[in-house]
Amino acid sequence: MAVYTQVPDDEMDAFIASYGLGELISCKGIAEGVENTNYLVQTQKGPFILTLYEKRVNAAELPFFLHLMEHLQRAGVSCPTPVHDSNGNILRELAGRPAALITFLDGLSVRRPKRGHCKAVGSALAKLHLAGRDYGKQRPNALGISGWRPLYDKFSARTDEIRPGLAEIIDTELAELEARWPATIGADRHASWPGGIATGVIHADLFPDNVFFRGDTLSGIIDFYFGCTDAFVYDIAICLNAWCFDPDHAFNYTKGQALLRGYQAVRPLSAAEIDIVPLLARGAALRFLLTRAYDWLNTPPDALVSPKDPAEYLRYLRFHQSVTSARDYGLES
Amino acid sequence: MAVYTQVPDDEMDAFIASYGLGELISCKGIAEGVENTNYLVQTQKGPFILTLYEKRVNAAELPFFLHLMEHLQRAGVSCPTPVHDSNGNILRELAGRPAALITFLDGLSVRRPKRGHCKAVGSALAKLHLAGRDYGKQRPNALGISGWRPLYDKFSARTDEIRPGLAEIIDTELAELEARWPATIGADRHASWPGGIATGVIHADLFPDNVFFRGDTLSGIIDFYFGCTDAFVYDIAICLNAWCFDPDHAFNYTKGQALLRGYQAVRPLSAAEIDIVPLLARGAALRFLLTRAYDWLNTPPDALVSPKDPAEYLRYLRFHQSVTSARDYGLES
Repeated sequence: MAVYTQVPDDEMDAFIASYGLGELISCKGIAEGVENTNYLVQTQKGPFILTLYEKRVNAAELPFFLHLMEHLQRAGVSCPTPVHDSNGNILRELAGRPAALITFLDGLSVRRPKRGHCKAVGSALAKLHLAGRDYGKQRPNALGISGWRPLYDKFSARTDEIRPGLAEIIDTELAELEARWPATIGADRHASWPGGIATGVIHADLFPDNVFFRGDTLSGIIDFYFGCTDAFVYDIAICLNAWCFDPDHAFNYTKGQALLRGYQAVRPLSAAEIDIVPLLARGAALRFLLTRAYDWLNTPPDALVSPKDPAEYLRYLRFHQSVTSARDYGLES
Repeated sequence: MAVYTQVPDDEMDAFIASYGLGELISCKGIAEGVENTNYLVQTQKGPFILTLYEKRVNAAELPFFLHLMEHLQRAGVSCPTPVHDSNGNILRELAGRPAALITFLDGLSVRRPKRGHCKAVGSALAKLHLAGRDYGKQRPNALGISGWRPLYDKFSARTDEIRPGLAEIIDTELAELEARWPATIGADRHASWPGGIATGVIHADLFPDNVFFRGDTLSGIIDFYFGCTDAFVYDIAICLNAWCFDPDHAFNYTKGQALLRGYQAVRPLSAAEIDIVPLLARGAALRFLLTRAYDWLNTPPDALVSPKDPAEYLRYLRFHQSVTSARDYGLES
């Protein structure tokens, strides 16, 4: 929710002109995205999103994300796609930042997802997984299990400032997940999962903010900047956390069932994938608990963006710890 | 630069539906406006700005501003205008806030105005003054001279926290302006100015942020929420401050001349108006120095919006104090 980089008038004009989209009609900084600066740009050929990638983004990884958007869009996923300038480039520089002009996707995100939204998200996620299967590039999940302990080490001494006793909860959970998480092969620990757990490109951040609807129809998915190679079912575990808890932090079985049915109608899960859902749901809850806790402790008080409360994910983690099988999420095996 | 109020999905849908603009296609919080929440809303009938008025705005004054926009637009000023809902209302409530849907104005504001922009702004300001002459409503200038001392009293004890010696500068300037400012009649001190100084509706905040251009052509004026009844030439004095200083804080005579020529090509100034420009330019500089100083001292460190540096206006004030006649601004009499 911020505009971090202001673009000088002349640079903006020259930048937009290089895309051959006619005159720049308007340009508004939009209050979306925590990591980057986004402008909604109106041209004679319609609206576009101009993204300037800020310091937290590793510029070397941008081609993975931008080409992924192109790949998915060609494969029939409704998602934004980078526009090619008159030299064919999609990754440019503007105001000293890496920058890309991205197609505008109609639709609105929902703040309070209902059952139908969850079903639609499940189906869209499965389509995304299938569409990404022949994407040639790999990207390890920097926020997968191998990234959690290094992240936790950065703030663990201060964890109890968030909530007394939280450090012990995280210590115990992290140790158990590391012990039980399926062993994987190679430097990229997620390049291969054992026993019928399929891997490929996952979105890894498919929160309601990143899914657009027109009426009740899902119109597209945005924000692929956490996209990586990992188990498809881990993406499902993220969505169960992101979509299926009610505002009172209770898990909504009906929404979980709808999301999982929506997914399986497109890509049925293997028995191994079903079995591992509860464990991965705990992992996903811990991942967001850790990143939110880190942001909570490290956001300067004068920051433009208020950090999100980590405690929400502690509640979710507690639920997942109480789960006895995938049936508790609505999974029918 | 902020979105303060989030609107629940259902309320947003119902609100937009009541305007008969077809389906709500997209809605982005935009990083504009310090006082209010603004969304750029795409409907089947095109884009609109949805404004939710936050706590600092006096809701009782909103009809003055909204009707002014309608009046000016009908009189040929290119400015946004509130949309009537199916019941004919322009001022509504949404998410517990007063709210209005406003037409979208094409164009971009310029960060570094050039001579041509200043000339265009001068002409547009004169047209605005002429178009507002038959607007029936009055609104005292809350940030006119009678408002400066009460504002200063709120923070004067802390003034030197901004810059040592600033309190003495403001004390002296405020006393001198109060002594020399033309005496006016009645409770609204600006309802009538003596000796050929015309009054009427002024914009009172015509900064580059609030003026849009397409290419070099001025496409419109926005943000009438400081609009009030005061001397037209005081609006010019504000623009000299807002448009005609270079990034190094030096007054740019060429820009001043262009702005004043642009204005006088539409509405020639009287001798009395010309004579008073230097005094009013000092007043305008003090007005922005005071409001910025207040914001500087009163913005909580975790605020979404960073306060603007008051010292800029101290530099401008110093220049105006050194001026010997309106010729120093480029005014040809």
